[in-house]
Amino acid sequence: MKKNLIFAQSGGPTSVINASCYGIISEAKKYGIKIFAAKYGIEGILKDHLIDMTDIDENDLNLLKFSPSAAFGSCRYKLKDEDFEKISETFDKYQIGYFLYIGGNDSMDTAHRLSEYMKKTGRDISVIGVPKTIDNDLTNTHFCPGYGSAAKFIATNVKEMAFDAEVYDKNAVTIVEVMGRDSGFLAAAGALARDEVIDSPHLIYLPEVTFEEDAFLSDVERVLKKKDKVFIVASEGLKDKDGKYAHEHLREAKADVFGNIQMGGVGRYLEHLVKQDITKRIKVIELSIIQRCAAHSASRVDNEVAVMVGKAGVDKIMNGINDIMISIEKTDKGFEPGTVPLSQVANHTKPFPKEWIDNKNRWVTQEAIDYMLPLIQGQAEVPYVNGLPKYIRFI
Amino acid sequence: MKKNLIFAQSGGPTSVINASCYGIISEAKKYGIKIFAAKYGIEGILKDHLIDMTDIDENDLNLLKFSPSAAFGSCRYKLKDEDFEKISETFDKYQIGYFLYIGGNDSMDTAHRLSEYMKKTGRDISVIGVPKTIDNDLTNTHFCPGYGSAAKFIATNVKEMAFDAEVYDKNAVTIVEVMGRDSGFLAAAGALARDEVIDSPHLIYLPEVTFEEDAFLSDVERVLKKKDKVFIVASEGLKDKDGKYAHEHLREAKADVFGNIQMGGVGRYLEHLVKQDITKRIKVIELSIIQRCAAHSASRVDNEVAVMVGKAGVDKIMNGINDIMISIEKTDKGFEPGTVPLSQVANHTKPFPKEWIDNKNRWVTQEAIDYMLPLIQGQAEVPYVNGLPKYIRFI
Repeated sequence: MKKNLIFAQSGGPTSVINASCYGIISEAKKYGIKIFAAKYGIEGILKDHLIDMTDIDENDLNLLKFSPSAAFGSCRYKLKDEDFEKISETFDKYQIGYFLYIGGNDSMDTAHRLSEYMKKTGRDISVIGVPKTIDNDLTNTHFCPGYGSAAKFIATNVKEMAFDAEVYDKNAVTIVEVMGRDSGFLAAAGALARDEVIDSPHLIYLPEVTFEEDAFLSDVERVLKKKDKVFIVASEGLKDKDGKYAHEHLREAKADVFGNIQMGGVGRYLEHLVKQDITKRIKVIELSIIQRCAAHSASRVDNEVAVMVGKAGVDKIMNGINDIMISIEKTDKGFEPGTVPLSQVANHTKPFPKEWIDNKNRWVTQEAIDYMLPLIQGQAEVPYVNGLPKYIRFI
Repeated sequence: MKKNLIFAQSGGPTSVINASCYGIISEAKKYGIKIFAAKYGIEGILKDHLIDMTDIDENDLNLLKFSPSAAFGSCRYKLKDEDFEKISETFDKYQIGYFLYIGGNDSMDTAHRLSEYMKKTGRDISVIGVPKTIDNDLTNTHFCPGYGSAAKFIATNVKEMAFDAEVYDKNAVTIVEVMGRDSGFLAAAGALARDEVIDSPHLIYLPEVTFEEDAFLSDVERVLKKKDKVFIVASEGLKDKDGKYAHEHLREAKADVFGNIQMGGVGRYLEHLVKQDITKRIKVIELSIIQRCAAHSASRVDNEVAVMVGKAGVDKIMNGINDIMISIEKTDKGFEPGTVPLSQVANHTKPFPKEWIDNKNRWVTQEAIDYMLPLIQGQAEVPYVNGLPKYIRFI
């Protein structure tokens, strides 16, 4: 008897995670099996909250390809020992033989542990991981779907804001805070905004480089003196020499009086430093969740690769391959799918390469630019209705 | 002898203010006169900082049409009595007969006063205003170029963030702060995001409605109980019953201890209220300057109308019309240019119409939706190079 397939989404959403679901569904349809989606990630399997996607309408499937967020819901849940048997019961109930888990390194750990449990309990159930994270910090893959679109959004908006920031003939500092708690790939994407028309942003701060207040202030003063304006892109994850988040210093110093007022993160902290020492003409923009869900400006390449890894996941799992994550290889022909054992990616993170950091200039090297550019090419053809993107979801 | 033409940009930039410059330049080229742009608004005329745009390359002119920010720089400068003669001297020096000032209601006042001065001193110099403001608060015009693109950006991103906000199966509150200090048109655009797939945002707060903390908290509790999630769009300009900015209360209460730390505006204030009384699971997103410069997602209609008012300005001024602002009329054939005396728009503001506010539901009426929708139609065909929009500027 043919076994059925289930997939689930995990962790933070991206602009193209649903494109991977599109890839999984459209490929799995070829095998004449039932296709289930779990609601709210692995928790949907635990709670038996599944959606039968087997007969999804072609039009809805196409909308799914371009919709942001996680169309089936997501979770941040670490499996407990007692959960494995419960999951197995749901799998048995729906005659599941194939499970694809879309997510980052935590999810790859979940997938690996599940795969091991299935082997141990003698079940014929294969588990494959499909990569996804805007942070781009999964190991053993050229990049992670979601990153290309986030990088494109950051580069585009930083460029637009850099133009905006130079509109008045006066000294001013602009700081853009981007995501990436442990990895500087997102902040580095700010470098793509600079071109022959605008030599901005001027300074980029990555979490891989120890943050020092004095050096930062002298950077700002130097640029301000030379150019009249300073445009800064900073990662939310800047850390001091003890590995502690830089903005925690300010938070602690003021904790007694701030009470439960949200102090914000790195952007507000850098603003505080500049205001104290240099100038009060300063703007902070936190790109916040927009950078991970702005599907209206998704990268076509990123979207297509997200579809590709979803399709490849189904192709591999139906061909008896188990306990691996689909990786992305860069070849002469473009991006192609590969495989890597889940144990090699689970819980590991890839930092922004040290050799790509030009710390003297608070910038990144040409190699970094050459790495990022292919990932932001093209515009995904998001369908519009009445002036707005048309999106779909199933929760 | 033929007189020359000069134009300048004023106030906050928009995604389409340069499209009006494109309109002015391409129309003025037909008259075989010299075309000057002032650098940094009226200040460029005062300081004799002009750029000769007469022979602008066709390719650059096309880039100008889609570039955000103010490509010639802007200013926020109120003319002093002694400035008028200085401006006249620059006009005389370059044999200027025609001056077009692109801006909001402050700029229309400047234009009007300049026009009066020219008449009084017997100079044959005509002055015409070209409307521009994302706030959409100029009177006597159907709408203001810049608003359509800002509204489209807000609606698009609010929709994408609303999808993102519902990805986890948990209670949470999301607040998006948008611009519009005295006028609710921008906040109202959040309403366009709601459709048959997502009934979010849930609550919209406009500056035209007195803000009351208790009512706000009961709104949030009511929606949270019914839907598990609350998505709020709030104008930066919410005011209490005394007409004071609502978030100033918090600022004052904490002023002694906050020192020079930026406390943020309405978003952080509403967050504080919700955290104290309802839940700590809350996210605040300030759209900040992105909403006025995100030309990559500009409305095609807005862009085309911005071009139209620039062209119409030249057409009128070359035909002897003076001391007016180009207005936009809605007709059966679409949007067409009209004229309105500068004195009627100078220093006046148009609030979001009271009859379009559904205050019971913290929402806007269908008439408001029907007003906004035509302004966000179509996507401006921004040129892309190597994955990013290609923009130009002349400062």
